[in-house]
Formats: sequence, C-alpha cells, structure tokens
Amino acid sequence: MFAPGTYAGRREALRREIKSGIAVFPGNTEAAFNYPANTYHFRQDSTFSYFFGLNQPDLAGIIDFDSGAELLFGNDVDMDDIIWMGPQPSMADRGKLVGIDRTAPLQGFGDYIAEALNKGRKVHFLPPYRGETRIQLWTLLGIPVAEQKAAASVELIKAVVKLRSIKSAEEIAEIEKMVDVAYLMHTTAMKMAHPGIVEQEIAGTIEGIALANAGPVSFPVILSVNGQTLHNHYHGNTLSEGRMMVVDAGCESEESLYSSDITRTVPVGGKFNERQRGIYEIVLNANLKAIAAIKPGIPYREVHLLAAKTIADGLKALGLMKGDTQAAVEAGAHALFFPHGLGHMMGMDVHDMENLGENYVGYDEEITRASQFGTAFLRLGRRLQPGFVLTVEPGIYFIPALIDQWKAEGKFTEFINYEKVETYKDFGGIRIEDDVLVTETGNRVLGRPIPKTVAEIEAIMKK
Amino acid sequence: MFAPGTYAGRREALRREIKSGIAVFPGNTEAAFNYPANTYHFRQDSTFSYFFGLNQPDLAGIIDFDSGAELLFGNDVDMDDIIWMGPQPSMADRGKLVGIDRTAPLQGFGDYIAEALNKGRKVHFLPPYRGETRIQLWTLLGIPVAEQKAAASVELIKAVVKLRSIKSAEEIAEIEKMVDVAYLMHTTAMKMAHPGIVEQEIAGTIEGIALANAGPVSFPVILSVNGQTLHNHYHGNTLSEGRMMVVDAGCESEESLYSSDITRTVPVGGKFNERQRGIYEIVLNANLKAIAAIKPGIPYREVHLLAAKTIADGLKALGLMKGDTQAAVEAGAHALFFPHGLGHMMGMDVHDMENLGENYVGYDEEITRASQFGTAFLRLGRRLQPGFVLTVEPGIYFIPALIDQWKAEGKFTEFINYEKVETYKDFGGIRIEDDVLVTETGNRVLGRPIPKTVAEIEAIMKK
Repeated sequence: MFAPGTYAGRREALRREIKSGIAVFPGNTEAAFNYPANTYHFRQDSTFSYFFGLNQPDLAGIIDFDSGAELLFGNDVDMDDIIWMGPQPSMADRGKLVGIDRTAPLQGFGDYIAEALNKGRKVHFLPPYRGETRIQLWTLLGIPVAEQKAAASVELIKAVVKLRSIKSAEEIAEIEKMVDVAYLMHTTAMKMAHPGIVEQEIAGTIEGIALANAGPVSFPVILSVNGQTLHNHYHGNTLSEGRMMVVDAGCESEESLYSSDITRTVPVGGKFNERQRGIYEIVLNANLKAIAAIKPGIPYREVHLLAAKTIADGLKALGLMKGDTQAAVEAGAHALFFPHGLGHMMGMDVHDMENLGENYVGYDEEITRASQFGTAFLRLGRRLQPGFVLTVEPGIYFIPALIDQWKAEGKFTEFINYEKVETYKDFGGIRIEDDVLVTETGNRVLGRPIPKTVAEIEAIMKK
Repeated sequence: MFAPGTYAGRREALRREIKSGIAVFPGNTEAAFNYPANTYHFRQDSTFSYFFGLNQPDLAGIIDFDSGAELLFGNDVDMDDIIWMGPQPSMADRGKLVGIDRTAPLQGFGDYIAEALNKGRKVHFLPPYRGETRIQLWTLLGIPVAEQKAAASVELIKAVVKLRSIKSAEEIAEIEKMVDVAYLMHTTAMKMAHPGIVEQEIAGTIEGIALANAGPVSFPVILSVNGQTLHNHYHGNTLSEGRMMVVDAGCESEESLYSSDITRTVPVGGKFNERQRGIYEIVLNANLKAIAAIKPGIPYREVHLLAAKTIADGLKALGLMKGDTQAAVEAGAHALFFPHGLGHMMGMDVHDMENLGENYVGYDEEITRASQFGTAFLRLGRRLQPGFVLTVEPGIYFIPALIDQWKAEGKFTEFINYEKVETYKDFGGIRIEDDVLVTETGNRVLGRPIPKTVAEIEAIMKK
C-alpha cells in the first residue's frame, strides 16, 4: 500500500472533477469457485483500490461531492473470524491507513445510498462486472441488472479514466517490479522449451513464479505452440522441434494490484530455422519501430498503422504480400496476418480500466474507434500523454480457418499471395510485447530487459 | 473425461431417483477477475460436470423425468471465436462425448424451462452459489435471489448427494492421482522450509506444482507459521527457527475436477524440538487412531470424538488438560485446542457437495448436527458407507484470543490447566490430514504416502 496521503490525494482530485451527488464504490466480495466457502484468490476492484487502497472483501466507499465527506464501510471481525482468519485490524484502523476517519459497518453503505436517493440526489456508480456486484446494485439502487450498464455515470467514468490514465512515479515503480518478475517467468519458460515437454508444465511453473514472487498472474497465461490462436489457454500440446512457443504472461502485485504484460515467442529447442527467423525479424522490427515512435501527442492509432505497414513491408519482401503496402494497410489486408490491435493501456488492470468501457479509455472526441477488421480491435487509439503506460505487441499469425475464408471469398487478391501463404499454414504465430511508459520527451521500456533479439533468445536457451 | 457411458449411466441413475418434472443444470459461466474479459481460471460446476462431463463455460443441461429426455445446450463458435480461441468441437460433437444426442443453442435452455413452467411442471434446481447463476435463475425461473436457496429442490439435492457420495473405481483413481501431485507439493514445501524464507515463496511454488502437474489448487493454499489460525491465507511471514509451518493444500484435476486435500506440519529448519514433538505425537496419534477406526457402518461423529478423546488424553499427559478426559470431551473442553471437525467428504469438490448444503451431505435422519462449539463444525457425522472418500484431519492449536476469552470466562477450569496453557501461547498449531477411502471391510489411505512421522519428516527435510 501507498501512504494514506496518496489515497486522500486521489479522492481530492476526484472531488475536483465532479461537482455534485455521491459516488459509490462497492469493493469486491469473495468470488465462489465451486461452493460459497471455497473462493478464488480474492481480487479487489481496481477503482476501489485506487481510491480506498484496502485489499479485503466486503468493503465499500462513498465520496460525497456536495459535503466533501469520504466514508469507508465494512464490518469488524468477531471471535469466529479470529479463529479461522486470525486477528484483523479494526475498520477504524483500516480507515487510518488510507486517510479516512469516517468508518461504519457495511449496513451504513446501503443506508447512505437510500438517504441520497430519498433526497433525489445523483448517485454516481461505475458499470459492474461481477454478478455479486450487479445483485448488490439492484438491491441498493433498484436498477435492474440489464439496465445497469446504461445507467452508470458517464461523468464518473470520464473522471476516473482521466485520473487513472496518468501514472505517478510510485505507480510506475510498481509496474516495473512486475515486469522484473515477468523477466523470471519468461526466461524460465525459454529455458524449459525443449521438445517433449507438455505446455502445461511450463505454464504452471511460470504461474508459480508469479505467485511466489509477486501475486496472481495478471491474466490467464497464454502459452502455446499454436500461437496462431491469439488467446490460447489450452495447454495440452507437447512441444516439438520446428514449432514456436508463444508465451503471453504477466503478473500483478498482491498488494498494489499493478501489473505486467509481456509476450515472447521462441523456437522449440532454442534455434530459429530460416523460415522462423524471417517472420520473427519482421515482428521484432514492427515492435522496435512502434516503440521508437511513441511520444506525447502522437495518436496511438498512428503507431498501430506504422506497425501494420512494417509488417506488410516485411511480408512483401518474403513474397507473402504484394502490391502497394500503404494501400494494403489502408484497405486492411494486413489484418489477415495481424488481426488485432497494437496495444492497450495498462496499470492496475492489465487492460487498464476496461470495465469502464474501452472507448472511454482508448478513444475520445477527436479519435473514435475504427470499424475495419483488425484495427477495430485496437483498444487504444487516442493521442498519448506523458504518464500513460501501454503495451506494444505486434504479431504475425497464420490462422488456417481465416486464410481459407478470405481465400474462398477472393479477398484482397491484389495484396495477398495466397499460394505462398498456403505454405505457411503450419507455421503458427509470433507476437512480441513490451510495456512502455510515455515520458515527457518520448518513452521508456519498463523493467529489466527480457531477451528479445534472435541472438539474445538463442543465447539464453542454449544455457 | 470418462467414457460417454459413465455420464449416461449417472443420468440414468438420477432418473431412477426422481419421478417427475425436469431438473435444470446451469453450467458455470466465466467468472470476472477485474473486468468482464479478464476471467479467473474457468471452473465448471461440479454437479454439471458429474452428469454432463463437459468443461467449457456457458453450457446447460436438462433431464426430463417424465419423457426421459436428456438435453445439452450451448452455442457453436463463429470465426471471431476461432481467431481468439482456436477451432472448437461443435455442440453435436460435444454431446457425443457424453452420450447425448439432443443438443441445441443456449437459448433453448430458457425456452424449455419456460414451456415447463407454462405447463405447471415441477422444475428442480440446485442452490446457486455464484452471482451469475443467481441472476440466470432469477431471469429464467422468476425466483428472486433471496428466495432461491429455499426454493431449491430438496428431492434433487438428496438424489444428487446419494449418487455423488459413493465413488466409483474411476473416480477413486482420479483422486489418487491428485494425492500423488499433493505428495510433490508437500515434500517440496518441506524441503523449502528453512529459516529466512518468506511463506509466499513456498506457497507460490507449490501452487505452481499443482498447476504444472494437475490443475488449480483445490482451495486457496493454507501455509503459515501461524498455524493456530485455521485458514490462514496471509503469506507474508518469514520462517524462523522454533516455529512450525502448517501446509494445508491440494489440487484438482483440470479435466475431471477430482481433488486432493492434505495437511502436514513441520518444524522450520527440519528438527522438532521437544515441545513440538510432544504436541505433534498427540496429533499424529489422533490421526492414526481415527483412520484405524474407519469402516462401513461407524458414524463419523464417533470417529471425531475418538480423535478428540485421544487429543484430550495426550494433553492431559503433558499437563495441559486434567480430570476425566471422557467427561471433558463430552462437555466440549477439548475444543479449546481442537475447535474444528475431524473431516469432510471429498470428491469433485474438496468439501464435497458443500454447495448443496452441509447437512444433506454429512448428516441424515439418524444423526443430526451437534450444537456444541467445536463438534458443531464437523461437516460429516453420519454412518460411513463403502465408496465414501473423506478427510481425517485432527489438530491442536493454541489460539491466544480464544485462550484469553475462555480463561476470562473461567470456562472448563476443571479440565483445562490454564497456567500451563499460557506457556504455549507462542506455539502456533499442528494439523495432520489424509484422504481416506471407506472400503467394504475397512479403509484405505489414498495415494502415495507423504512423510508423516517425526522420523520421516526429519529425514526428508535433511536432504
């Protein structure tokens, strides 16, 4: 946890953004795994944690914009709780940790809301993403589940996005620590990537490294010799010579929740063959060119399209694409190989604030989301500002089902050499991802550098 | 997964138990971690898995007791799904895996229920334990969340408990595999338990072993030098000489969901001191005596009380208790040191079927739950039957807050030597737990034996 003043300062900043009404922040409850008492690893709501810091279930906060009051709700423990969970700080003591002196039992949360509603005051809330929170809002606010997303406060969403988008030095330090743990995860995976091992052994081991050194993985580990499947959580394949292993994995701090999100792709056995090296160098070039372009003021969609153009140029040199690559990217032909966005904001959420709405986080009045297949999946398009932390993750994939579909439709035959593409249908995919801070003058790749060039990867895998 | 006939046989057995109406089995949905698209490791509902085998989100099943129809609902994937998740079997093919030929899109689940309700037919459902399922039942059945538990079908609960309580040879084999992985988890923890290491390093490492070799942990790892806290999930302490480390951990099969649940307690650094050995031998004796008593027909509460008596006798020999130990156990005085139950059923859930209601699983018309502190926490009290799998987990704890309370209240001064107990307030706690199958003639401890005697533990920790 940060100092109490950090949380007080954030709440004060929010109070400057919103003029009236109250904002309600239900913290997360425990999430049942297979029965009520057997729960998943507790994960606090990120926005609750941003303003109220505490990492326990069944808490709630209110900020009253009219009176300036800041309240924290939660129940003190009893003897049964002590026997099963050990002694716990009182709610009053918890409040002090985050600069709040008005604490009350959880029942007070509903009471405060009921009184506000009775007086016809505006009650700001954020879109819920868990069933338990939806039921809580239904009960406390009387808004049916299906209407809650639309009834969420756009004013509060925009204010929270504005604050959370700009990372402070202490937040950046937390993210860097998590990248350093990701270094351990990824280099361990590289060293384990020998023919004959099953994916699950590696995936489980690196999740264990996250848990032992930081906290939970920041998202389910993606680890596959079938990298052409973008979010592949099936870990049952046996590694074999000639395949590449994509590992997209990061962790988050148990306490502060800040995360990392790194992807590396390596040849099983440790040595790139010529075809692998050819595609790999294109993706690496796209990653490096995109990073070099990151600076305040540039729209991230422009960086995305620069990466797409770099990929198209590289594929043209290999004979997989053809024609005018600028025109190909404008038309969206590159998306056969690079069907996703270049990256996204990150912070306490690995896709930062995605629960508040991707378009509020990644777009604005000036730059709205594109509808073209591929670029439409770009989560961050707007102009970059100092303090943003984002991912840069270009990739090239050979997705048999998509290739078959486009070929059958005769799509972009002027840009795509389907005959050659057919010979790559057994290739898989490659993605290379780093976490990057936008600085006042340009950018900085965060954390301990993780082997990325062909030479660096072959060197660490040889050990 | 088992063969299609296994699931068909289970459904047929259920149809023999219930005469009319339909039973609805909503499979689990993905559970959001910090935003909708970032989910926890998917966990199927155990009862759904028992009857319908499939381990994917957003499925549902119906068994129609009047017509005998068995239906499986779920949506086939589209191209976007294939890009992100890879090719998936069709619902028709999934149905074949579990012996079902009537499959339909998920929408059909609600339609079938609506038609049954319209005709005034009985709709049996089990008590929900996730917010998403509660909302689904509210929507489909029109039963408000607060009323669902009471409206759940006792007939269906009892029938499911009857079937799931008796484990087949193939189920037992799955549980044994999970105990074998728990062997790796626990022996690794033992070897790591040196002064200076932080609990989290060990806890994370053994969770990684579960993930790499089996699947998720079957419940959040309990690992602490403060073993007196029964379910201690705080892993921030540094191990130091003179403390004992309690590790209560198991794993479950990624595919079949069957679980293990093992506890071992070891001295930090690998050598028991005299005081530790004294308490340890009592707990071990209670564990062994309880196991020896397990056989068909014996009420498990009797085994629990035998363990309690063994503990009281041992503590009396050390001067911590006094007087007539039989009377002490009858009065509940042992619960100062052993405040929980001896064990519980296990299977696909580590507390098997706990979501259906502990009293339906562990008690019956003959043997109902006790109200006395300590024994009231016993989850399984009824007579044992061949095919039951259960845990045997006696423990002795010195819980300062509880000691202070009882002492201040002058509770059981005829049985407890508070003066001596005071000198153990810095001791911590010890628990020893195994997974045991009730056989036709007695019992069998499942899986590869994990070091348990003082000599075995000191030997493995010396390596």
